[in-house]
Amino acid sequence: LVDKEGIIHVRGRIDTSPNLSPENLIEVISTEIKKVLHSLSNQVVLKGVGIGAPNGNYFTGTVKFAPNMNWKEEVKVTKLFYKNIGVKTVLTNDANAAALGEMLFGKAKNIRDFLFITLGTGLGSGIVANGQLIYGHDGFAGELGHVVIVQNGRKCGCGRQGCLETYASATGIKKTYQELLTVNNVSSDFNPEVHGSIYIYEKAIRGEKEAIEAFDYTARMLALGLSNSVAYTSPQVIYLFGGLSQAGEILLKPLRAYFEEYLLNIYRNKISIEISGLPHSDAAILGAASLIWNEDN
Amino acid sequence: LVDKEGIIHVRGRIDTSPNLSPENLIEVISTEIKKVLHSLSNQVVLKGVGIGAPNGNYFTGTVKFAPNMNWKEEVKVTKLFYKNIGVKTVLTNDANAAALGEMLFGKAKNIRDFLFITLGTGLGSGIVANGQLIYGHDGFAGELGHVVIVQNGRKCGCGRQGCLETYASATGIKKTYQELLTVNNVSSDFNPEVHGSIYIYEKAIRGEKEAIEAFDYTARMLALGLSNSVAYTSPQVIYLFGGLSQAGEILLKPLRAYFEEYLLNIYRNKISIEISGLPHSDAAILGAASLIWNEDN
Repeated sequence: LVDKEGIIHVRGRIDTSPNLSPENLIEVISTEIKKVLHSLSNQVVLKGVGIGAPNGNYFTGTVKFAPNMNWKEEVKVTKLFYKNIGVKTVLTNDANAAALGEMLFGKAKNIRDFLFITLGTGLGSGIVANGQLIYGHDGFAGELGHVVIVQNGRKCGCGRQGCLETYASATGIKKTYQELLTVNNVSSDFNPEVHGSIYIYEKAIRGEKEAIEAFDYTARMLALGLSNSVAYTSPQVIYLFGGLSQAGEILLKPLRAYFEEYLLNIYRNKISIEISGLPHSDAAILGAASLIWNEDN
Repeated sequence: LVDKEGIIHVRGRIDTSPNLSPENLIEVISTEIKKVLHSLSNQVVLKGVGIGAPNGNYFTGTVKFAPNMNWKEEVKVTKLFYKNIGVKTVLTNDANAAALGEMLFGKAKNIRDFLFITLGTGLGSGIVANGQLIYGHDGFAGELGHVVIVQNGRKCGCGRQGCLETYASATGIKKTYQELLTVNNVSSDFNPEVHGSIYIYEKAIRGEKEAIEAFDYTARMLALGLSNSVAYTSPQVIYLFGGLSQAGEILLKPLRAYFEEYLLNIYRNKISIEISGLPHSDAAILGAASLIWNEDN
């Protein structure tokens, strides 16, 4: 439960099973919301329900091919919520929601043109231009993770090759690190199935050559993608979010250097790359809530 | 002189010398405009002056590094015009102006998300998203010609390598054609200094292998750039303009095929590539005028 100032009043967590039907899951969540409202004073008015979900489509209010659920059909998420809760329900994908969160409650309050990049398992993004989140004609704008930066490059989950997220993401840096260990013949207990990118981070801060190189290579590929991205909407700031961005300077320092090197001259020395101002644990909540408060303005 | 419906009432042409000072050139143009207004009935009210010029900046109203003029400093174009004419003066680069022209007076009247691509000596572009031209924080958004599509690729005038416009432009196809003639050991009177891309077009429609291949390669590289571009603003239509686009199906047919092949699955079969609806000779005029009529809405 988030108010207009971005203060989180109530938090909840509901375990989901991939085998829950959409109808059941949304009913369970709605019941929890109603319980919370019931326990509060009557002065609290629920303005709406904001939802950030992978593959969420703003225009249709639906989720198609939900990555972590065994849902076969296209699920009418906002319609189902409205049926249960009876208030305005707004849906978009998680990276778009977080970008709005940054604009309403984070560092981008006075920034009209920015990119928001989430470096998680994949690379998600939200684009704000002229002070508006860009949805595109079909709700699918801002898929920077699937811009091809290397022709015939790494295989991507999307079925194509060389997408930015195959290099610049937790999955990407793990692959890079594994390759460097192999090439340099280093024996290691690193297991990409088990370890997160934090494993590489910890090796890097202890000075391990391959780990530092993995961060440098990741920074270089991300810089390639971002320097090209600037030519579209000419953002003032690029905000980084997600597990990999928490590596801080070990990623940011080479990233900023490569970025400036690769930029077209007219863009040089005026675009900053910053870590998101959203508290990591609250970003999803604030992002989802901002879908409602943004429409209220 | 263009009215709100996009009808061109008066046309003029003023020869410019690269050695004219900005002050002199703008005074000459202003005097011509005043002469035209004087010759018309008093019922004609000049709303404003719209200017589409290479490197024109919407926010600052200035032109820096004017490509075809020997101007050293940053020229305050709108300020100088206002001093001479006394009406609102709006400036942007020529591709942005043409994109607005397409929206107000061309095929994009009801299209809220589109890309406008000019294939001339270089590759210019304007991006419209949410019904608005995207200027970016500094006025330099929409430089798709300088997105790097081939790492360590062809040398570009911008000082970098592999920019889209080194492949997908009149200059690009001439280079490709020349390379193909050389590789295939074909003797030809083709001279890229003298001949335009129309030379290659005429060879291609007569079935010359190298010319057809040059169009195919150009289409493939443009498709690469455009399929990546879609992931930013998810446009409904991509409009092509400029000399090279007049080649028609010999470019469009392979372009559309490669484009669909390269697209991320969520974008397939829903984005059309079309030739601009602006009459070729009027596009610059209508584009510049739309800068005024767009702000009037």
